[in-house]
Amino acid sequence: MNFFTLQWQDSSVVMIDQRKLPQEEIYLSFKTAEQVGAAIKDMVVRGAPAIGVAAAFGMALAAQNSTAENHDAFFKEMNDTAEMLISQRPTAVNLAWAVKRIQNFYQSSQDLPLLTLQNMILEEALAIFEEDCNMCIDMGVHGAELIKLGNSYLTHCNAGALATAGRGTALSPFYEAKDQHKKFKVYSCETRPFLQGSRLTCWELLKNNIDVTLITDNMAAKLMQEGKIHGVIVGSDRIVANGDVVNKIGTYGLAVLAKAHEIPFYVVAPSSTIDLETPEGSQVTIEERPIEEVTQLFGTPSAPTDIKVYNPAFDVTPHHLVTAIVTEKGIVYPPFSESLKKIKS
Amino acid sequence: MNFFTLQWQDSSVVMIDQRKLPQEEIYLSFKTAEQVGAAIKDMVVRGAPAIGVAAAFGMALAAQNSTAENHDAFFKEMNDTAEMLISQRPTAVNLAWAVKRIQNFYQSSQDLPLLTLQNMILEEALAIFEEDCNMCIDMGVHGAELIKLGNSYLTHCNAGALATAGRGTALSPFYEAKDQHKKFKVYSCETRPFLQGSRLTCWELLKNNIDVTLITDNMAAKLMQEGKIHGVIVGSDRIVANGDVVNKIGTYGLAVLAKAHEIPFYVVAPSSTIDLETPEGSQVTIEERPIEEVTQLFGTPSAPTDIKVYNPAFDVTPHHLVTAIVTEKGIVYPPFSESLKKIKS
Repeated sequence: MNFFTLQWQDSSVVMIDQRKLPQEEIYLSFKTAEQVGAAIKDMVVRGAPAIGVAAAFGMALAAQNSTAENHDAFFKEMNDTAEMLISQRPTAVNLAWAVKRIQNFYQSSQDLPLLTLQNMILEEALAIFEEDCNMCIDMGVHGAELIKLGNSYLTHCNAGALATAGRGTALSPFYEAKDQHKKFKVYSCETRPFLQGSRLTCWELLKNNIDVTLITDNMAAKLMQEGKIHGVIVGSDRIVANGDVVNKIGTYGLAVLAKAHEIPFYVVAPSSTIDLETPEGSQVTIEERPIEEVTQLFGTPSAPTDIKVYNPAFDVTPHHLVTAIVTEKGIVYPPFSESLKKIKS
Repeated sequence: MNFFTLQWQDSSVVMIDQRKLPQEEIYLSFKTAEQVGAAIKDMVVRGAPAIGVAAAFGMALAAQNSTAENHDAFFKEMNDTAEMLISQRPTAVNLAWAVKRIQNFYQSSQDLPLLTLQNMILEEALAIFEEDCNMCIDMGVHGAELIKLGNSYLTHCNAGALATAGRGTALSPFYEAKDQHKKFKVYSCETRPFLQGSRLTCWELLKNNIDVTLITDNMAAKLMQEGKIHGVIVGSDRIVANGDVVNKIGTYGLAVLAKAHEIPFYVVAPSSTIDLETPEGSQVTIEERPIEEVTQLFGTPSAPTDIKVYNPAFDVTPHHLVTAIVTEKGIVYPPFSESLKKIKS
């Protein structure tokens, strides 16, 4: 990687400011948990795994900066910090998961001296960071098997290094294939309304010398018609028990188009994304986002001010349109209701 | 219509400034053919039929303003104006067609006195205007048969009143259905990269009290999945002999999605759009547009400056995805290779 999303450096957390991309590559340094909380809220950092790691580092900063003189005071400080961090993006599953992992850790180690505990909390946060990096690498190694010499792949949104501590989920196979000296091309959908594709995916692939071409979302079908796409590779926010895939709005349309053009459709996500509790995708509530995301572009109105807007943030791709799901544990094929259960066990 | 696109008023041409929409509704008055030429070039007016009518009015202004003292001088002036107007948008078929119709008219009427000729050129331009308005009305009447009570329709780009002198092509059935007091809903794709959907279609439908909702292009599939779309209605830049439809980029993808969801896909266009000389869509050269349309939004960069971009302006929808083609002469069904020939004869 020719950049990093976030790192622990000299008692502080350093993060690339994603709000400034693609125009400027700026790294910000955070010395307190409160600063990290604000960075999560303000979208300095985004992407579920990256937010989780940022929050774990936030907990480590709180531990490190604590002046508590006894365990009770320390635990109160830490729990307050945990609550503050989780409240920044209440729907982010990884955020709560990472914070709770740190909490579970210190709650089960109450007999250790405070200084030891403080150091071990940092080690736990660094472990979360490491594990995320390793999962990314493993998804990349498995996913790279699907990248064939000379072929072109379409991706949507940003499931890349910028969304994780490591090499990303859906983009990790590209980085791995590049390391293996395979030649291939990537097409990136710009991903309206929030433009994660043009702003982030194009930036990070270009930064790492991967051959990437930007299109608007509505050009994908024409590329497929022209025979220029040999596979679609996307990430996922949630994969439910039957293999239905919840991901950024526009994913479902790409899956239908891929099927119509007999192009494989791959999903790359860590096994933590698999939710066996939810039987099918139709049971997932889809968040609707503010209409201004659609009616304004960088602050300039693109539509009449009184227009009605439908702005769902995600869609559900039914499992029968999914060719394979790549996790850090390996590639999973249909029938997903069986193979997903196996990989989670 | 609660606005007009262009009109002849008191020896001048008045046009709505489409560059200012949807924020401001401003009408500009043009008194010379040169001004009209500049307005065509600068996109004050756009849409093939509207540009044709504007050019005809430009010719009428040239005739009206002429101080030529004999027929030769007058014809030279008029031919120079014709050349100037056509050169503003060289690929616009309707522009050249309208200008040549005026030229044919005065070239075949050389024995008339100059003053009579000048007046008759204006009458010919007004006839072109009238014919365009009438064709729009007729497309609307035929197309309205396809609009069913309580249903919702998806449209793409702007094939509306703003693209013609009259009520538009693909949007005309909505205006007619509204006049018939039918209740229905319209969804408008924003139509990246140039946003004709959000800027123009939303504006004109809202202006005429039609229930319209804006979506980004990549939300169409989800709407179809939800059962919210009962038909797709689009215009066309060219329909070739076998029924393949050339239209704004994104149209082909909507046609594939419509087929996958068993939703009818309708094309509305004047019979002048039908090109029987070209056997199939693959033979049509598709214009590629400047990359800045994709990488900048109202002047702000949305992608890295050195990114590669694919920006085709149109795509081709194969005839087997088209349910019916609506023209001013009636509705045409497959097999199009036969029915299109019949309607053109």
